[in-house]
Amino acid sequence: MIETPYLLFLGDAQDQLAAKVAQGIKDWRPENAVGQLRLPGCKADVGLQDMTLQQAREAGAQTVVIGVANRGGVISKEWRAVLVEAIEAGFDLASGLHNLLRDEGDLVAAAQVHGRTLHDVRVPTDAYPIASGVKRSGKRVLAVGTDCSVGKMYTALALDAAMRARGMKSTFRATGQTGILITGSGVPLDAVIADFMAGSVEYLTPDNDADHWDIIEGQGSIFHVSYSGVTLALIHGGQPDALILCHEPTRKHMRGLPDFAVPTIESVRDITLQLAHVANPACKVVGVSINTQHLGDAEATAYCKEVEARLGLPTVDPFRHGADRLAEALAAL
Amino acid sequence: MIETPYLLFLGDAQDQLAAKVAQGIKDWRPENAVGQLRLPGCKADVGLQDMTLQQAREAGAQTVVIGVANRGGVISKEWRAVLVEAIEAGFDLASGLHNLLRDEGDLVAAAQVHGRTLHDVRVPTDAYPIASGVKRSGKRVLAVGTDCSVGKMYTALALDAAMRARGMKSTFRATGQTGILITGSGVPLDAVIADFMAGSVEYLTPDNDADHWDIIEGQGSIFHVSYSGVTLALIHGGQPDALILCHEPTRKHMRGLPDFAVPTIESVRDITLQLAHVANPACKVVGVSINTQHLGDAEATAYCKEVEARLGLPTVDPFRHGADRLAEALAAL
Repeated sequence: MIETPYLLFLGDAQDQLAAKVAQGIKDWRPENAVGQLRLPGCKADVGLQDMTLQQAREAGAQTVVIGVANRGGVISKEWRAVLVEAIEAGFDLASGLHNLLRDEGDLVAAAQVHGRTLHDVRVPTDAYPIASGVKRSGKRVLAVGTDCSVGKMYTALALDAAMRARGMKSTFRATGQTGILITGSGVPLDAVIADFMAGSVEYLTPDNDADHWDIIEGQGSIFHVSYSGVTLALIHGGQPDALILCHEPTRKHMRGLPDFAVPTIESVRDITLQLAHVANPACKVVGVSINTQHLGDAEATAYCKEVEARLGLPTVDPFRHGADRLAEALAAL
Repeated sequence: MIETPYLLFLGDAQDQLAAKVAQGIKDWRPENAVGQLRLPGCKADVGLQDMTLQQAREAGAQTVVIGVANRGGVISKEWRAVLVEAIEAGFDLASGLHNLLRDEGDLVAAAQVHGRTLHDVRVPTDAYPIASGVKRSGKRVLAVGTDCSVGKMYTALALDAAMRARGMKSTFRATGQTGILITGSGVPLDAVIADFMAGSVEYLTPDNDADHWDIIEGQGSIFHVSYSGVTLALIHGGQPDALILCHEPTRKHMRGLPDFAVPTIESVRDITLQLAHVANPACKVVGVSINTQHLGDAEATAYCKEVEARLGLPTVDPFRHGADRLAEALAAL
């Protein structure tokens, strides 16, 4: 668990996109962030109050979260100076960067002296069990995709928000770096040892109230040969009661795999359901989430209508249309 | 790569079964072992010449392989004394035990002083890539099972031997501890980080002659919820041209999962083929391997005949009947 609330460090972000982790926190857990800290030359702004370290401490912030991608694969001298100062001011640090905070000698030394914690959310910290397959109480829904990076995390977060707005009990369960930073906890599934993948998903989604939903963030795709094993561990460890199918209609080929065509939504539905029934024979596909960011409004609506007619399932772009219809489908299950 | 030939250390094995790693080496790669070393009280014998460390060195042995399970999860004082002596005599050590050689201070110290290597084959040593999915030359066959521990390694080793006997080009590719010790190399797939699983299988089975077969050792089962992700990484990383279905007909439930029924061979065939076609649309199921160790001779033969008629595929127990018919099926592909 990363202590909240956060001060979001945007560094010297070269554009808005570089700060997408900070933007995700601001969009989905605004109560987790008291402000943003920007260095000279920063070209991103997530719309929070600019604060010094001291102001953020006074506002109650506990952790400085690195909400920005670093350049050139190094943590620069300018960043390090601020991060050391943050530790000295009493902050923990949290980061999803490939470069680990724990590999930076000055940060480690400062954290030791001042009794603070460095959270590298790419690295698993818990000893996960081997999956037992034992049926757990409570309900679970998993987002699965035709490809990587088609909007599974966004769909899960939007669904979680829509369910809470309806008064349903729901918890977003993060399985990747960004999701973990947004919510403060989760499992960095792509970094877990093979034998413990499904067990880590069981650990993440334990017994719960009968009417509680875990909204499990998906990873990869059953059709993505580089990461399909991770996806299957989510399907079998998560033992979902419901699946949401996620798709991006303008993708030319599987991400990073130019020789691989994107499968149809129907083929993802069919094979995922077969696999899901091994862990939970009652699992159903309840809806479709389309990422229409590259389509115009009319096109987007027409595409969703066409898929809805074809599959007979509520089909929305949660970003354009909200996730209410998906939440409704879960409520009706 | 572990340097061969080996001296097989049987320690104080409490029974023959405890020495199954040594037995596997003796059975499948007898040219890799010059002899066996037994301590007082050892109740196992793999049928090799008993040798002292000195005799084994003179016979050319390079590595002492721990071919026996340890008791109580510790490397005993008696073992350590012999292993230190082995290092001093110029041997490398290799082990698939959960307790790592590298965690034993006296072994590490001796290895450093004498310039020898400690191989813990449970721990990956190479930096594996993320899978690219690019089609590789040469052919690959993968053993897949209805459950864990149904004879996939045995089937693969027997198939490799039968293919070599027919003059075919073939290489057994180990993906587990025992297989790695038998052949001296491989990938300990269950210990690989999730994101690199499929890539490690690509790494293990690189481009090869057009008429060369990699015989890939299977792991887990698509139907075993604890390990199915590992199995799918083998299917997608291995991009097999052929699959052998492995089954143990007396299993009451999935290994370690009392609530899970063992699937039919047909359901494993159907779902595995669908998944395999993502990576290699030409993949075919070519045969069935039945582990009949708990059946009598007549029963075993009748069972294989019945499966053969039902599935229309050559069906054998490689231990009872040999793997020739499976090799023939691959040769005909």
